[in-house]
Amino acid sequence: MGDIYLFDGRFLPKEEVNISPEDRGYYYGDGIYDVFRVYGGRLFEPELHFRRLERTAAGLRLQMPIESGPLQTKLEELIARNRLTEGTLYVQITRGTSPRSLPLPQGVAPVLVAYTTEFPRPVAAMEAGIRAKTVEDIRWLHCDYKTLNLLPNVLAKQEALDAGADDAILHRSGLVTECCASNIMIVQNGSLVTHPANNLILHGVTRAVILRLAQAAGIPAEERPFSLEELHEAEEAFITGTTVEVTPIVAVDGRPIGGGSAGPVTRRLQQLFANLIGQ
Amino acid sequence: MGDIYLFDGRFLPKEEVNISPEDRGYYYGDGIYDVFRVYGGRLFEPELHFRRLERTAAGLRLQMPIESGPLQTKLEELIARNRLTEGTLYVQITRGTSPRSLPLPQGVAPVLVAYTTEFPRPVAAMEAGIRAKTVEDIRWLHCDYKTLNLLPNVLAKQEALDAGADDAILHRSGLVTECCASNIMIVQNGSLVTHPANNLILHGVTRAVILRLAQAAGIPAEERPFSLEELHEAEEAFITGTTVEVTPIVAVDGRPIGGGSAGPVTRRLQQLFANLIGQ
Repeated sequence: MGDIYLFDGRFLPKEEVNISPEDRGYYYGDGIYDVFRVYGGRLFEPELHFRRLERTAAGLRLQMPIESGPLQTKLEELIARNRLTEGTLYVQITRGTSPRSLPLPQGVAPVLVAYTTEFPRPVAAMEAGIRAKTVEDIRWLHCDYKTLNLLPNVLAKQEALDAGADDAILHRSGLVTECCASNIMIVQNGSLVTHPANNLILHGVTRAVILRLAQAAGIPAEERPFSLEELHEAEEAFITGTTVEVTPIVAVDGRPIGGGSAGPVTRRLQQLFANLIGQ
Repeated sequence: MGDIYLFDGRFLPKEEVNISPEDRGYYYGDGIYDVFRVYGGRLFEPELHFRRLERTAAGLRLQMPIESGPLQTKLEELIARNRLTEGTLYVQITRGTSPRSLPLPQGVAPVLVAYTTEFPRPVAAMEAGIRAKTVEDIRWLHCDYKTLNLLPNVLAKQEALDAGADDAILHRSGLVTECCASNIMIVQNGSLVTHPANNLILHGVTRAVILRLAQAAGIPAEERPFSLEELHEAEEAFITGTTVEVTPIVAVDGRPIGGGSAGPVTRRLQQLFANLIGQ
């Protein structure tokens, strides 16, 4: 299971997918990606993912090798071939294979790779919550583009793990942006607060879904940066993401958040999300 | 010529170098590199390049697959096998092949790829100079690490080319850092001024060599950030780099620098550099 790749329009065993050392993705990280959630064998919120992929492609002036409609059909076939029911689908598109030189190459075909991974819902972490460490956000100023330049995320994640935490909460000079691979929200006076979807954070699909569910349920939400002090004093905090769904943060830098366990707003949003995905 | 690669300790034709789609360099840009200059079939300033490679590896906690001494022997063999006399040698090391997950993987061997390219000295550009465009520096805050996360450099270079310039001069809020793939120096009251070698610039080997040559020649030099205004009003400006050596900047944003042609300090440093490399 899970070992059939989509590569250059063909379905191949993983072992037959060979990347050139002159792929711009390999030497510049010159490419984009997205991670889709698959529930019950179906892509979750595909329109939001494709819109984000197209937005990043446009921002980097990367020509998509296939339009979103036909790509969705291919990805659905990939899911079927791998008999995936619960998991993720990763798709990445690099600018193509060309001798190493900074300018955008002409007449080069982008390289598309996609594969699936079995991944159950993280019910234990969603129940117990995670511990986080705050780490300075040193990334570039286009975090809204979902690109392959992910070294700072790797380093921040490892720094958190080394400190005995599960994830890093990134901040710029004391203002919280997001986590290594998820967005973060706090609850303050019963209201959600989360960083605005500007150039400093990835515009998470789950973030958008949760804000939509909150609005429908009458939970107020404010999109503004919040400080580390506000985080430490928050009633509740949680992360949102394609694989983590809504996962409570129960401690930050060793200090409990709220009562040290998931609060009522977090639980309500988890339930609303579970309802949405038919769980 | 130039088509023999060093890959995982073996010398292979380029066509036989196959990278896994699960190489962390491919999906995270999780790797480091260096570009060596080859003059007369020999590596130029190898110690400075190896020291930088080791420094970046340590910063990213990437285990070098081979020590610098034996690596230099391999690279010299690569030069010989490709019969390279004038050109560049590119070496990159990624963290290895492992399923996609942010934490540093355990027990994974780094992947080393190296190849050579014929490249004559850019005598025409060194004589006539280049035109530059100023572009906001939006990179991450560890530009001193020579990593594969180079998308902002790609975008800045293309922005300059689109504006009819040859290269981009990067600045953070009006303070000049460096160019897309080279360092920049200006001449002010007969003295060199260049950004200090901190986390905001790549610590260029040619930059270090030029500062060394300037000191020996009694040309004063100051390592401090300078502003866009100082750049526009400079007596001279030039870039330094492994492939560009010392190349004058004769115009910035359409306005001439100095007299619109290379000045005497630039010419003197070009001559000192040529002497050093035996030209």
